[in-house]
Amino acid sequence: MSQARWIWYNGDFELYHSIKLHNRREEFDCPVPPMWTLSAPYPNANFGKAFHADGQDTFRVLTPHKGYVIVDGRRYPVNTDISVDAGDHAISVVVLAESGFPCIYVNSRYLVTDDTWVANRMTGKAYPVGASPVYPHPDDDPTVFPFAYEKREPVSVTETAEGLLYDFGREMYGPVHLENADPAQPVRVVYGESAEEATDPKEALVRETVTGKEQYTLACRAFRFVCVKAEKAPRVYAEYEYVPLEDRASFSCNRRNVRKIWDICAYTLHLNSREFFLDGIKRDRWCWSGDAYQSHMASRYLYFDPEISKRTIVALLGKPPYEQHINTINDYSMYLIISAYEYYYATGDRQFIEIYYDRLKALYDFMEGRLDGEGYVCQRPGDWIFIDWSEMDKGGDLCAEQILYWRCRLAMADLAEVCGLDGAPYRQAAEKLRRRILKDYWREERGGFVDCYTTGRELITRHANIFAILYDFVSPTRARKIVRSVLENDSVTQITTPYFEFFELCALCKMGKLAAAQRKIESYWGGMVALGATSIWEEYIPEHTGAEHYSMYGMKYGCSLCHAWGGGPIYLLGRYCLGVSPTSVGYETFAVEPNRGLYRHMEGKVPLPRGGEVSVSMDAHSCTVLSTLPGGTLKIKGHTWPLEAGVPLTVTF
Amino acid sequence: MSQARWIWYNGDFELYHSIKLHNRREEFDCPVPPMWTLSAPYPNANFGKAFHADGQDTFRVLTPHKGYVIVDGRRYPVNTDISVDAGDHAISVVVLAESGFPCIYVNSRYLVTDDTWVANRMTGKAYPVGASPVYPHPDDDPTVFPFAYEKREPVSVTETAEGLLYDFGREMYGPVHLENADPAQPVRVVYGESAEEATDPKEALVRETVTGKEQYTLACRAFRFVCVKAEKAPRVYAEYEYVPLEDRASFSCNRRNVRKIWDICAYTLHLNSREFFLDGIKRDRWCWSGDAYQSHMASRYLYFDPEISKRTIVALLGKPPYEQHINTINDYSMYLIISAYEYYYATGDRQFIEIYYDRLKALYDFMEGRLDGEGYVCQRPGDWIFIDWSEMDKGGDLCAEQILYWRCRLAMADLAEVCGLDGAPYRQAAEKLRRRILKDYWREERGGFVDCYTTGRELITRHANIFAILYDFVSPTRARKIVRSVLENDSVTQITTPYFEFFELCALCKMGKLAAAQRKIESYWGGMVALGATSIWEEYIPEHTGAEHYSMYGMKYGCSLCHAWGGGPIYLLGRYCLGVSPTSVGYETFAVEPNRGLYRHMEGKVPLPRGGEVSVSMDAHSCTVLSTLPGGTLKIKGHTWPLEAGVPLTVTF
Repeated sequence: MSQARWIWYNGDFELYHSIKLHNRREEFDCPVPPMWTLSAPYPNANFGKAFHADGQDTFRVLTPHKGYVIVDGRRYPVNTDISVDAGDHAISVVVLAESGFPCIYVNSRYLVTDDTWVANRMTGKAYPVGASPVYPHPDDDPTVFPFAYEKREPVSVTETAEGLLYDFGREMYGPVHLENADPAQPVRVVYGESAEEATDPKEALVRETVTGKEQYTLACRAFRFVCVKAEKAPRVYAEYEYVPLEDRASFSCNRRNVRKIWDICAYTLHLNSREFFLDGIKRDRWCWSGDAYQSHMASRYLYFDPEISKRTIVALLGKPPYEQHINTINDYSMYLIISAYEYYYATGDRQFIEIYYDRLKALYDFMEGRLDGEGYVCQRPGDWIFIDWSEMDKGGDLCAEQILYWRCRLAMADLAEVCGLDGAPYRQAAEKLRRRILKDYWREERGGFVDCYTTGRELITRHANIFAILYDFVSPTRARKIVRSVLENDSVTQITTPYFEFFELCALCKMGKLAAAQRKIESYWGGMVALGATSIWEEYIPEHTGAEHYSMYGMKYGCSLCHAWGGGPIYLLGRYCLGVSPTSVGYETFAVEPNRGLYRHMEGKVPLPRGGEVSVSMDAHSCTVLSTLPGGTLKIKGHTWPLEAGVPLTVTF
Repeated sequence: MSQARWIWYNGDFELYHSIKLHNRREEFDCPVPPMWTLSAPYPNANFGKAFHADGQDTFRVLTPHKGYVIVDGRRYPVNTDISVDAGDHAISVVVLAESGFPCIYVNSRYLVTDDTWVANRMTGKAYPVGASPVYPHPDDDPTVFPFAYEKREPVSVTETAEGLLYDFGREMYGPVHLENADPAQPVRVVYGESAEEATDPKEALVRETVTGKEQYTLACRAFRFVCVKAEKAPRVYAEYEYVPLEDRASFSCNRRNVRKIWDICAYTLHLNSREFFLDGIKRDRWCWSGDAYQSHMASRYLYFDPEISKRTIVALLGKPPYEQHINTINDYSMYLIISAYEYYYATGDRQFIEIYYDRLKALYDFMEGRLDGEGYVCQRPGDWIFIDWSEMDKGGDLCAEQILYWRCRLAMADLAEVCGLDGAPYRQAAEKLRRRILKDYWREERGGFVDCYTTGRELITRHANIFAILYDFVSPTRARKIVRSVLENDSVTQITTPYFEFFELCALCKMGKLAAAQRKIESYWGGMVALGATSIWEEYIPEHTGAEHYSMYGMKYGCSLCHAWGGGPIYLLGRYCLGVSPTSVGYETFAVEPNRGLYRHMEGKVPLPRGGEVSVSMDAHSCTVLSTLPGGTLKIKGHTWPLEAGVPLTVTF
């Protein structure tokens, strides 16, 4: 008998918490829910299971909602004792939820609610239920997300013209508590990711004035500093609210600063790893598919938690019918389908794909229905062709969108085949699209793809060319050509966002240009750390000074100082320096191709699925690798050695 | 400036209240939510309006949810003062609801929320908002349905072995109140539509035992009797919970019993006219499309309230994607589309159709996708081919389903054309289906349609033949043949449910056989009234005696004693005796064709849309008709007279 837990129709939990999450952003005293459509959970569900009782058993089906239980054809109310004799039984439970979502709990000798139950939404196929071991008790409430809390005291207090400035030492997220306040006097609390923001009540994004009580627990917010103004200073402390995710990775090398950068990147990822992957904890505090795509990648090289990846995919996916792109952005719909496949490739979790294939397919069909006469992704009413904030030629169908769509079709082919369906039509459509893109967008003489082939501008920017390398859209020969003529060509406009910079560094590393990434980690990420950053920023412009760093989107403190896409070095160092990557589904086989690049020596760990991990240490003369799981192959300079689970292998040069 | 009222995305109100309504059924201490899938409201919506302020104005956008307001491009929080200068302005309001549904309220000098606002669900077309004048105040709550309440005292109290039996004199619905109870002692309350049920605690469907308080307000339930058992008898009274719908109809004739039957039918309809049209107030207390179809018809001859018809259609329709028939029943999906068109034909409410056309079309497409290779409606997994409880040959595609689908296609053609779309493809598909049905199912030599043409049974039952007359599927000549060879043929199995009996009587009346309906009203409906019924039953079998009348579906008191489909005489007498019916959309023109049938004299009123009404009185020598609206034509025995609004017209014979 497994451990009992609350169960629900698969996906309802994520949709419900997505609504709650997306209702928590605030700016300048104003709630800011997102501008895209959200999906609600299904109001009713039918749970079922066949079970065997070795002896007489009595159980209750607990639910906060109304519903009934059918056991062996007889109906009972929920929340009352039901007895069965020894033998085989069938149970089904119908629940209709007026708020929250349908969920049930049973914990008896011969029957417990767990992931062996199935449910449908009163129609359609019954899928394995959603269930989480974090809700094991009858009084647990799945509408409350299971965050952990740690009390945090400020590390310093300073008097300022705007009140007492409390510094909590590093960026964090959670409720600020005020105690011993004077109920007769207002208390103004201004939050800041920087001291400047916390002491600038007019321009700070998040602030609150409370009155009437002696004690306050304020809403959960992002901050390192809080500035509290009151006639009588209250006692101030905070709680750190987080999802306990255990790191199974590390990285250090002879350049000590890199270890510090890695730690701060890891902390940044943790702060943004909550119900789902957030873009930033102060702003937007939303779940964006493009941002999440990079978090999936980086998190697999940090704590490798399938649950947060699944939750994020399900929340972003919502429910059919699709009438709008994910986050309103065409490319973000594609990243979502690609990330579902990459999730499968990394974990081998076939059941997840089987459960959500219909929704992924519906999203794909929505995209198919919006192609233009040429079969290209175009901008339909309501669409946002994003790719990146950079200047590029969006005067016609954009090349980067088409390459992403080609990748998306291959992902659909694979996803279909995972479900035992025919992937060939997707593959054929992808190949047709590939040939067309090459014909229309590739400029052999310039060694790159133009943004647009219909405007006459013939502009080459980096984005499509980065995708072409990253997704193996072109042969290695052409990829090398692209590196020379585009990526290493300073006359081609530089990437300005850390978001796309990450893709560019991945592409360079993939092409063996590891040093470029290593240098960038120290100059760009290291630049922020040198300025005292305790988490990685949304954007860093080295030429800026002081509070200039904090402005963005026309707001003085608009730049998020804790942005998930800053976690890229976790991926780059794990994937390309330590060199660990799967070579078949679920890491059944995987490669370890360590590459020191500029470092004299390095050592670190990369997690594998199912709790496994690979340790690597390398210097100029030798390399030692230990994997706790079988299937690994060490590859160094064209030589390969099989890795035996649990047995360290040392190779000397 | 119109009256301010709460507004919401059109349909959300209905979906929300449908979930609440369908969560209220209980039987034998067990909650019984329905076995079909329900749709939830959209979590977020974007409301908008352009407006002009003649002078400076300050307003608040009230909402119980989180959200923000954009006025002329600038963002403000909800629930705070916003000021505008004189001039033209644009406002939009984004709201995300974690429970309930997005709704807002503004009431200022130059801006009020009313039905001139539009909303979308953060994507898609913006439609006129949902709004109801019953929520005019800032502190109104649209998640609370606006029922009216009247205190009701029992008319008698009797001691029984099971406690004190309180008789409220007639069937009703609402909360029972207990006062001055002994908190230390349990109080058992058994509800009964009959005295037998209320005094049979084991077999009564609805009952409750409470303890621990001096006063109780019990849940709203259906009853005429309650039997209360307690050590110390509490004071017992009730409240009648209802929707105030003003009757604009009446009927009386020389047979005084008919007036009484009409009144009881009217009361039965009222009891079942709540958030939506219910089937019965005790059981099932659900909204069934087939039952609702007849309530639409009858209600137009009683109070003619477009709002309840719209609410019912929207609640039944739910939201795409459709993966299940309405109420799981194939024919019920078709009735829903037909009733949407009949609603339009009666009211001329084009806007309603425009708003819901996409959902109706999606439901139709769902049905189209489930036809079999012959193009016929068939039984796919999860489908319920119902038509009626009667024995018929369901061994293959059922004729009645096909005729209904033919009618449904014509309705789709009309609905498309209402929206300015091309109805011809639907009409062509309908005609193709008609020819096929005639070829496969019509038996000229037997003067009727067989149920099934593939089983070899060649069984003729009444249902398909009734539809063929009712919906003008056949020519008048063939219709007369069907009357002779099927409807008036006693060897063809009789209809046993009042539900289909209503359709049969409509068909007979339509064919001029009014007397059959008049006799049936007195024998069947009058039979129940003679037995003391204060509302019309779900089923009445004259051969039964005593409490036998109350059993059904294998339960001793399973028969609903207040069932909406019992309201049929309201329709029959208004439509065929008083003879009022629309001859063009929205009663722009209408016919008054009075027919006394068996009655020596009759008089009565029938409502028209927009508050109008037609009064008719007729005896053997003259007929007087008064319509408050123009467009009427009096037709008697082949002669026609135009009716002038407000001017009585008397015709003598």
